[in-house]
Amino acid sequence: MLQTPYLLFLGDAPDQLAAKTAQGVRDWRPEFALGQMRLAECKADLGLPDLSIAEAWDKGARTLIIGAANRGGVMSDSWMPILMEALEKGMDIASGLHDRLQDRPELVAAANAYGRRMIDVRTPQHKYPIGDGAPRRGKRCLAVGTDCSVGKMYTALAMEKAMHELGIKATFRATGQTGILITGSGVPLDAVVADFMAGSIEWLTPDNEDDHWDLIEGQGSLFHPSFSGVTMALIHGGRPDALVLCHEPTRKHMRGLPHYQLPTLEALRDLSLETARIVNPDVRIIGISVNTFAMGEDEANAYLADVEARMGLPAVDPYRHGARRLAEAL
Amino acid sequence: MLQTPYLLFLGDAPDQLAAKTAQGVRDWRPEFALGQMRLAECKADLGLPDLSIAEAWDKGARTLIIGAANRGGVMSDSWMPILMEALEKGMDIASGLHDRLQDRPELVAAANAYGRRMIDVRTPQHKYPIGDGAPRRGKRCLAVGTDCSVGKMYTALAMEKAMHELGIKATFRATGQTGILITGSGVPLDAVVADFMAGSIEWLTPDNEDDHWDLIEGQGSLFHPSFSGVTMALIHGGRPDALVLCHEPTRKHMRGLPHYQLPTLEALRDLSLETARIVNPDVRIIGISVNTFAMGEDEANAYLADVEARMGLPAVDPYRHGARRLAEAL
Repeated sequence: MLQTPYLLFLGDAPDQLAAKTAQGVRDWRPEFALGQMRLAECKADLGLPDLSIAEAWDKGARTLIIGAANRGGVMSDSWMPILMEALEKGMDIASGLHDRLQDRPELVAAANAYGRRMIDVRTPQHKYPIGDGAPRRGKRCLAVGTDCSVGKMYTALAMEKAMHELGIKATFRATGQTGILITGSGVPLDAVVADFMAGSIEWLTPDNEDDHWDLIEGQGSLFHPSFSGVTMALIHGGRPDALVLCHEPTRKHMRGLPHYQLPTLEALRDLSLETARIVNPDVRIIGISVNTFAMGEDEANAYLADVEARMGLPAVDPYRHGARRLAEAL
Repeated sequence: MLQTPYLLFLGDAPDQLAAKTAQGVRDWRPEFALGQMRLAECKADLGLPDLSIAEAWDKGARTLIIGAANRGGVMSDSWMPILMEALEKGMDIASGLHDRLQDRPELVAAANAYGRRMIDVRTPQHKYPIGDGAPRRGKRCLAVGTDCSVGKMYTALAMEKAMHELGIKATFRATGQTGILITGSGVPLDAVVADFMAGSIEWLTPDNEDDHWDLIEGQGSLFHPSFSGVTMALIHGGRPDALVLCHEPTRKHMRGLPHYQLPTLEALRDLSLETARIVNPDVRIIGISVNTFAMGEDEANAYLADVEARMGLPAVDPYRHGARRLAEAL
């Protein structure tokens, strides 16, 4: 979907967190991250070379990634001269902001004039089919969570890395805008029209070699009332052979819903298996990924040991310890 | 959403089945069905007065409903003079066809010139919120099915009728184009963007009187891999107090999916309850609606008696026997 490698544009990001999309590219696809470009006010730094448009072009950059968000996800007018220069030089532009590139007439005119593409990765770029639930060759693993934002994308990316290190064929399949920008392709599932959700995931994870694993980025949670339908479409469209349960143990309530408690890992295991078996009776849960960021080292290790004993499955924090045990479990 | 009453336009419908949307209006909202208009080739007949545009207008018709489908769901050029005349006379036009009114420039120009509305009911007409899963006042009942097209809309409409006869406050809530055309409002759920599915159903079934029931039209099935995400969003967005299980016992496989068998009523009961309890722990299954159209009278009655004994719940075919027992069970 996106031409690589990238120049990562951080704009006037007020802090490092605002540049987390660009950080994701640098962490997970360093071979795509040629350099960064920052405005004077920018407070984020990826530790990459600061390049002008011309320097990045000469090094081979083919897409300028808008890798930082202002408050409200809007595009600043101060960015426009740089975006225009990138188009003129020959680069495409990709953005995951709410504010769309396609809604800026001056950018659209310049892209047309120079024959460049502008990709709003929140907007579906493809006409997806209706799903048919048929088996496909190759293997698929899906990360499911007790809640939104518990580390499902991180888990799938870390598993891909660990599997490559073990010499196992594996491809991360992005289903959200950050994942799409990191890897250059994917389906922005939360923006797909209801009838085509499952079909879009079938399209994303087609027939493959028998010993190849797709690692599908999860979205939402079966237990999150706002987005459970999206998760269900992922489970049935993805037709996983393996599931990884993802959890953040210190969260006080479901994200954005103070009146909802998180389910237990046991409840997540049972409902995920029950729904996934509708399309693949042989599906198995192969491990548990816990985001222990808010815990100290001892507390985290004790928690993981307890979960592992209780559930009878490998339980790891892929950020602290890597995802090798999950990869081996596959 | 739609102005009532209606003139039902049957076009050149090749048979009675092609006019099923108009038939639905006549059956369930006879007070909206002032008359029908048919072209010379039309083979369908609703038994309503045949009216010209002028006659219908004089009797009070305010919307021309395109109530029949050609092969492929397209609009014939032969319809255009009539549609133009309706706009000129002062009527809105509503359609559930795939082929959209909004894509016909001559119609759009006429509607703008005369200040009329053209409503493609497959296209969402509202910017829906993201769901929040919060409790709402009033009661809600949702029809869920072992498959698509097993009678969920019919069941909810028949229950509404039976409840009105019993003096119970009840409102059918449409979630598909036929239901929207019949009742004049609703959410075309299969065309809503994924992130807003649950929120659109919360919007459709807002706070109401404590003794009022919303009867929510079901869509898809938790067991149908193509559309299970839509069903899940209905269950969590609808936050039902009561569920009715719908089934068609003679079907050989899931609709459109020869490699999938239908689940048992027991499996539907268990998974529906488990998912609905996430948003409402007090939800109950109150009865079973069986489409026995393909069975003889004796066979149908024996099947219903068997299901009723097996499941311990009232089991009826609302088409043969009405939905009074389901209404009473609520």
